[in-house]
Amino acid sequence: MAINIKDITINDIRDAIENENKELLLEILNEYYPADIAEILDELSLDESKFIYGLLGKEEGAAVLMELEDDIRERLITSFSTREIAHDLIDNLDSDDAADLISELPGNLRVDVLSQITDRQQAQDIADLLIYPADTAGGLMAKELVKVNISWHVVTCIREMRSQAAEVEHVYSVYVIDNHNVLLGLLSLKSLLIASPRDKIIDLYTPDVISVKAYQKGEEVAQIMNKYDLVVLPVVDEIGRLIGRITIDDVVDFIKDEADKDYQLMSGISHDIETSDKIWELTQGRLFWLIVALFGGIIGSRVISNYEEQISINPEMAFFMPLIAAMAGNVGVQSSALIVQALANNSLSGGVFPRLLKELTVGLINGLVCSGLLLAYSLIYTPSFALSMTVSVSLLSVILFASVFGTFIPLMLNKFKIDPALATGPFITTSNDIIGLFIYFMIGRMMYGMF
Amino acid sequence: MAINIKDITINDIRDAIENENKELLLEILNEYYPADIAEILDELSLDESKFIYGLLGKEEGAAVLMELEDDIRERLITSFSTREIAHDLIDNLDSDDAADLISELPGNLRVDVLSQITDRQQAQDIADLLIYPADTAGGLMAKELVKVNISWHVVTCIREMRSQAAEVEHVYSVYVIDNHNVLLGLLSLKSLLIASPRDKIIDLYTPDVISVKAYQKGEEVAQIMNKYDLVVLPVVDEIGRLIGRITIDDVVDFIKDEADKDYQLMSGISHDIETSDKIWELTQGRLFWLIVALFGGIIGSRVISNYEEQISINPEMAFFMPLIAAMAGNVGVQSSALIVQALANNSLSGGVFPRLLKELTVGLINGLVCSGLLLAYSLIYTPSFALSMTVSVSLLSVILFASVFGTFIPLMLNKFKIDPALATGPFITTSNDIIGLFIYFMIGRMMYGMF
Repeated sequence: MAINIKDITINDIRDAIENENKELLLEILNEYYPADIAEILDELSLDESKFIYGLLGKEEGAAVLMELEDDIRERLITSFSTREIAHDLIDNLDSDDAADLISELPGNLRVDVLSQITDRQQAQDIADLLIYPADTAGGLMAKELVKVNISWHVVTCIREMRSQAAEVEHVYSVYVIDNHNVLLGLLSLKSLLIASPRDKIIDLYTPDVISVKAYQKGEEVAQIMNKYDLVVLPVVDEIGRLIGRITIDDVVDFIKDEADKDYQLMSGISHDIETSDKIWELTQGRLFWLIVALFGGIIGSRVISNYEEQISINPEMAFFMPLIAAMAGNVGVQSSALIVQALANNSLSGGVFPRLLKELTVGLINGLVCSGLLLAYSLIYTPSFALSMTVSVSLLSVILFASVFGTFIPLMLNKFKIDPALATGPFITTSNDIIGLFIYFMIGRMMYGMF
Repeated sequence: MAINIKDITINDIRDAIENENKELLLEILNEYYPADIAEILDELSLDESKFIYGLLGKEEGAAVLMELEDDIRERLITSFSTREIAHDLIDNLDSDDAADLISELPGNLRVDVLSQITDRQQAQDIADLLIYPADTAGGLMAKELVKVNISWHVVTCIREMRSQAAEVEHVYSVYVIDNHNVLLGLLSLKSLLIASPRDKIIDLYTPDVISVKAYQKGEEVAQIMNKYDLVVLPVVDEIGRLIGRITIDDVVDFIKDEADKDYQLMSGISHDIETSDKIWELTQGRLFWLIVALFGGIIGSRVISNYEEQISINPEMAFFMPLIAAMAGNVGVQSSALIVQALANNSLSGGVFPRLLKELTVGLINGLVCSGLLLAYSLIYTPSFALSMTVSVSLLSVILFASVFGTFIPLMLNKFKIDPALATGPFITTSNDIIGLFIYFMIGRMMYGMF
């Protein structure tokens, strides 16, 4: 039976499950990596997933499980017994993945599982890791690493490494420690390959090593690894003892999550939601900011209602209200987005006032160009000179105001340790809408008085 | 003279440069990594930077240069002679960095520099790399790698690796090839450490290796490395011959750049700008979308002007115009942002119609909640029943429309191979503003006719 695995579809897999065609399924699974199998499982029903999962080896099953979407993993795990979780799963995971998995379990189950882990070292490592919040260096690190004592020779070192390396999936660096487990430096695998067995570690190692403390923020860890182009980063405790290592793949996820979060905040989405989420989750994640914007709009309507008489006399003033509000919103978002991004990339330098001055200059140039264009248009196409003056002068004022406001708010939020990304999106557009309309009618009253 | 390096400020460094206090400067530079020195240089004037650069060793200088901000690196390099670039710089860089640097040079200088490189292998590698566009696997890869022939024994392998490894800064993987340089698999450094000298490579290596072709998109490379948690990824040509490798640090930058680009597009910023850029660059990057939004606003004003009579009779209709426009914009951005993010993460599954239906359901729930709140408010606070009906019915219609429109546009753009992120930000808000206002007045005319 010659089947080309490439042409297999989810429906073929469903059929094979229904017919319990294990032979075909095993042939298919054999062709894929855990991340691919996880993608298949994400598409299947719980019962179908369980069937496939049952065909996988313990180690492969554990790897697949870690790659699943969070909600699908949760559903699958709750169908396992405590014993299955502790023995088949946890024992086959790296300590960091195991700790993440256990921290996702409900509280009572967590203790049961921990107590049933047979590998005492693994249980101890997991308990150590569970201390740290998920977004700290300690929460991102794994305990598996290869370390050698500075007093050793290469030959001892290689012997020791053989036994340690069996536990560690990928060896990128060998850490050099003293008798008290204090991190002293790095030994590259390259230098070990080149060394002779009698060479001393102390003569081969690099004493210069970048490390982080366990309670440093995940964001900082990501910045450090990115800045120094690191693939793996050792984690030390308060007195410099080596307690774990963070690999770049965990940090890439962190960088992506952070970027996604800022993006969603800017687009007015409060929870971390994805298109594949259920309708109720999608609704929840979006409703909050819509209601904020709605209240902003209602306040805006009250501002305008103060000028009811003016509108009924000069209804043409209403034509440009949405333009003024939209431009204020757009400029505000541009300014705040630049600040949020600079803060996220840690590339903001200089004080608040030079920055406001710079934004004001940019705002002045953009404002002059835009209001010039609008003046030209309105002089040609609208009947009233007072209206032309109103729209162009208020557009300039509104752009200037929104530039400064959009710069100032995220800087202030950041100063008070509030996520500056909150300032982007609906908040800044709604505030600028309201204030923009207020400026518009003030200037309108003035202009219609003058011309 | 006991100076704590931690307390050194940019001003201290400036003073030391002015006094030509090389001893102090060398002491400071010695404490820092290239990425840190680059950060210092980013703050200094060109002359000051040149002074510091002159104090660095050739290798360290080259490393610092690659970490500088693009515009500062460009300024510094143009002050070098062709000979200095070819000999002191290029020879001390990895082939990928060297190729990036050369591709930044003006055309005529590029040929001069290439012809003056003394290391023929490096010159050949760079010429090979310059063929590939920057955003492909070929553009991201380096030529330096460690490879062994499948027919070798461990002892030959280690001897060969010693000579190859001297060229390669970090060795993460050893590639196994056949006599025609076709990639066959991987050899982990761990297995080499554990093996005995007489073992054969063919018995030790892993035949299963994920690779990419040279012309695959950078985005795909990032997705593959992220999905399979890879630190390094081999690149092959069309017939499977090993031509280079991509390391994760280059891809992290790529992931960040992509995320930054989408973020900036959403906030109405067209070029890749940063707060530290010059005022003219900042203005340019933002003016385009402001003018787009301005024209949108002008079209909106023409839509409204068709209803001038209605506004002068019922001026209260103008109160809620900005609210309707803003809500349309916000909902549109939410919908389009979710699609853009799902496309960027490659996590979009299912067809267009189920997705539109889902969005429509979410829109219906959010629309009913928001328009219910607005109806309650307007019944209490505004005099006219017709107005209450107009605002609430049109808010619901506008939210439904914007959900569908915001979902549809990025999906369509993506189908026609246009960056879907263009649909977010000013484009979607402006279109939704105009259409929202149109819907509002249509419904207003109907309601004021009925009640």
